[in-house]
Amino acid sequence: MSETPVRSVRLAVVQLDDYGPWTVTPAPRRETDLQALQARLYADFADFVGRDDGYAFFGRFDNMLAVANETPAEAFGRFQERVRNRYPVTISVGIGSGSTPLAAVQTASDLLQAAGSAQDRDRREVLRCDQTLAETETQDITIGHFDIVDATSAYTDDRNAVDAEMAIQRSVIELKAELRGAHESVAQFVGGDNVIGVCPALSVETFREVIDHVEEETGVRYRVGIGRGETAHDAGRDAKHALEVCRESGDRVYEANSTHGSDRIPDPEFADD
Amino acid sequence: MSETPVRSVRLAVVQLDDYGPWTVTPAPRRETDLQALQARLYADFADFVGRDDGYAFFGRFDNMLAVANETPAEAFGRFQERVRNRYPVTISVGIGSGSTPLAAVQTASDLLQAAGSAQDRDRREVLRCDQTLAETETQDITIGHFDIVDATSAYTDDRNAVDAEMAIQRSVIELKAELRGAHESVAQFVGGDNVIGVCPALSVETFREVIDHVEEETGVRYRVGIGRGETAHDAGRDAKHALEVCRESGDRVYEANSTHGSDRIPDPEFADD
Amino acid sequence: MSETPVRSVRLAVVQLDDYGPWTVTPAPRRETDLQALQARLYADFADFVGRDDGYAFFGRFDNMLAVANETPAEAFGRFQERVRNRYPVTISVGIGSGSTPLAAVQTASDLLQAAGSAQDRDRREVLRCDQTLAETETQDITIGHFDIVDATSAYTDDRNAVDAEMAIQRSVIELKAELRGAHESVAQFVGGDNVIGVCPALSVETFREVIDHVEEETGVRYRVGIGRGETAHDAGRDAKHALEVCRESGDRVYEANSTHGSDRIPDPEFADD
Amino acid sequence: MSETPVRSVRLAVVQLDDYGPWTVTPAPRRETDLQALQARLYADFADFVGRDDGYAFFGRFDNMLAVANETPAEAFGRFQERVRNRYPVTISVGIGSGSTPLAAVQTASDLLQAAGSAQDRDRREVLRCDQTLAETETQDITIGHFDIVDATSAYTDDRNAVDAEMAIQRSVIELKAELRGAHESVAQFVGGDNVIGVCPALSVETFREVIDHVEEETGVRYRVGIGRGETAHDAGRDAKHALEVCRESGDRVYEANSTHGSDRIPDPEFADD
Repeated sequence: MSETPVRSVRLAVVQLDDYGPWTVTPAPRRETDLQALQARLYADFADFVGRDDGYAFFGRFDNMLAVANETPAEAFGRFQERVRNRYPVTISVGIGSGSTPLAAVQTASDLLQAAGSAQDRDRREVLRCDQTLAETETQDITIGHFDIVDATSAYTDDRNAVDAEMAIQRSVIELKAELRGAHESVAQFVGGDNVIGVCPALSVETFREVIDHVEEETGVRYRVGIGRGETAHDAGRDAKHALEVCRESGDRVYEANSTHGSDRIPDPEFADD
Repeated sequence: MSETPVRSVRLAVVQLDDYGPWTVTPAPRRETDLQALQARLYADFADFVGRDDGYAFFGRFDNMLAVANETPAEAFGRFQERVRNRYPVTISVGIGSGSTPLAAVQTASDLLQAAGSAQDRDRREVLRCDQTLAETETQDITIGHFDIVDATSAYTDDRNAVDAEMAIQRSVIELKAELRGAHESVAQFVGGDNVIGVCPALSVETFREVIDHVEEETGVRYRVGIGRGETAHDAGRDAKHALEVCRESGDRVYEANSTHGSDRIPDPEFADD
Repeated sequence: MSETPVRSVRLAVVQLDDYGPWTVTPAPRRETDLQALQARLYADFADFVGRDDGYAFFGRFDNMLAVANETPAEAFGRFQERVRNRYPVTISVGIGSGSTPLAAVQTASDLLQAAGSAQDRDRREVLRCDQTLAETETQDITIGHFDIVDATSAYTDDRNAVDAEMAIQRSVIELKAELRGAHESVAQFVGGDNVIGVCPALSVETFREVIDHVEEETGVRYRVGIGRGETAHDAGRDAKHALEVCRESGDRVYEANSTHGSDRIPDPEFADD
Repeated sequence: MSETPVRSVRLAVVQLDDYGPWTVTPAPRRETDLQALQARLYADFADFVGRDDGYAFFGRFDNMLAVANETPAEAFGRFQERVRNRYPVTISVGIGSGSTPLAAVQTASDLLQAAGSAQDRDRREVLRCDQTLAETETQDITIGHFDIVDATSAYTDDRNAVDAEMAIQRSVIELKAELRGAHESVAQFVGGDNVIGVCPALSVETFREVIDHVEEETGVRYRVGIGRGETAHDAGRDAKHALEVCRESGDRVYEANSTHGSDRIPDPEFADD
């Protein structure tokens, strides 16, 4: 019966330990220093996760997310060490698996919360992993890479920077909510007019319904490229290629049907010396 | 008549030149590399602006904002040079002044848009400044530093990371919209549960009305510390101190009534050698 | 006969492509921008190599070194991609194996040179690997971690910064030359008064002779902690621990006789959720 | 009598506080993390000093140098704050003035040493300035930008990376020693085959004697471009342009006779909106 292995997707939640209190101890720290600290820590995290073809999201900066199918739990301990050695703050990590991205985030969050409060002074550098990690294989990930049709002409070149940002953010919230509420997906803003949805195996038609819904609710027209693969990068690269097809063809939904495996990393050449 | 000098606040909009097309040329670039690029460029920008006691906001990453009362226009040219020398992308800058933060952003955006589209391949490293900059003095800035009452217990420790983030983001949008629509202010999320509002000389009572409005609309309870000063950092530091008073007293609105000028930077000691 | 597998140590040479000409095109670039570019690229490289328990050295910044026993050749292609996506320059990589660290560097350099000049405009992003990599197992690495006895009191607190630096550098050159000339080792300055030697399986007595030689030639007294292990980090961590023993005991040479495997990275905890 | 103002050059020594002990507390920290920490701190320092047209040098990383004619002493306090807010270490700063660069470094070092040992646990975030700073005007700086004739073909493309580096470093030491011993100058390696000499008003002929001396002693042929200006960047930019003239003409010494003031930073455009 259960000869088919249970398959799951793995997400990690990274939390800065007791960060809020630190930012005001002994007195409130300069805001631009905090902004730069958070941004550089996130950049290091993106590099770390990207090494294994994962995806990282800044979340709220003090709570970051990663899709980390290929990153072993032990490697997160290595990242905790790096942060400790290079920043005045430390991090805790929860790694969850689940049949959907949302379920995996829920598990990761539960594990962290069970270890103590984010502002518990005694909860530092916790690394908690869902027990089922070791027992399951990872499943393919579906990534939808969304952007807004004519975002530059309709927003960036037309409205002031604040109003363009607000219009886009309102639509992003709606997109995130629809993907989360109806489809157990985790969607994140990644800059500009781009949103990445980490999803279960949703159909092309479902993606179309999602962007139609967002347009009805907010008037903002998205298009989406869809990719599927073993890692976030594999799926996401195909999704980006598919989105390029949309840009050229005018289609609003497209699923990549091929992989682009080695199109960017040169193979090493082995030579006699 | 015009013996009173016209006073203004100055904001800058920084735009990555032709960035969207670059991210997919010759093929879509790896997402984590883009995330790290954007975050490090923003961190450098925060450092640059912070040097002159300004504030920086990540905006949409490809469109960033700064409150830059004390940063001369020429210095932004220096920052453009730095980006060109260290990144594979370049930036354009518009600097606007106005009687309110929103008016200043509008001017800065108009100047950039007049110079060409954000995706115009021939518009690179533009640096456009509102002519009135040279003729006016800067006015005091009012900063409201907002955070959410019991955010850790109500969100971070209670909901999964995705749902906590969405609830906070919905309230942030409402707060930004209210400050923008009713009060010509520019508000930006700065991580965790923190929002910074760059405002005209709003009263304490107005700030109270704003957070009451947000609570009515979203159910999320904010509190706010208020500071005023010549630079974003001066005002913002006082706002942070005021927010600390709120945290201790339980008040939801408090305005700092003193400056904390040299409480963190040691004075250099001059000594005979 | 050759049932014993041939064992080798692997080093990588990373070279910025056509970098000198770039620094003056179209006009000489600002020196501090170049300094920051080089330093951040090196920091990213250290992070990259450190992920697999390797060691990185800044070399001349436009030519960097790594001990990379555990880093697959393909991963260097990933690092090349990262540099291309985040910097205005690109890199080429040669990976060599050899029975000694010096032999491995020679092979890596030969491979790069065979692919073209460092200032050949057509040689970009080359990744060349010694063919024997695939056929051999890596051997244990011996690391000597050297520092200067009483460096702070004798140099930093006693001489001006320039004279302290020159005295130390002279001794470093002597130490490097002795380790290279007599012992096929690659030694690199790593800051302060610290030098790391990547060595074949030298004896404790040989290390003692090396530091005696340096003292005779330059008057600078070094001590050294010795570690051996499968990776640079394994060997280097033990060497650091051994150097701590020297500091406490007053001995000038000490070899660690145990591993300190998991003393710094917490094991992940697996929990039912 | 003293109607001519006394003029001086200003250099700063930046010292990581109690850094050596920190690197081994509670146990030796991972070397690549330390390398990345040091390199990023130096990059931040280069950015900081470069903002005011100064020059920064990595020195021994735990002891860095800056030519800082235009950076006010107070601004270094701002940099100390930034380091404290973003790194797990802190820094102390001594700022010295003198009639020669070497004299300024001596004063800066004396001031730091008088404040306590570099490994004194109670000496943290000291900022000491030469009293005469406030009383004197800065003098013009002379920069010699040196590189090696045919370095790529003679070293990088011809020897292995380790031997190329050693040959270059030996010559660098000789160049530094000659400039320091005979000419009260501070010379620093800045990567590749480049050395920057911060000098009193040495003549072209003196620079020629210096490189002739180095060639006699080490066999390494340098050339040098010479620039003079109010700031390190002004002088150094001219020196770089002069070195370009050498590269084209084959001359080994050339002094720039013009400034290239605004050739790289676009002037901001002021526009009516």
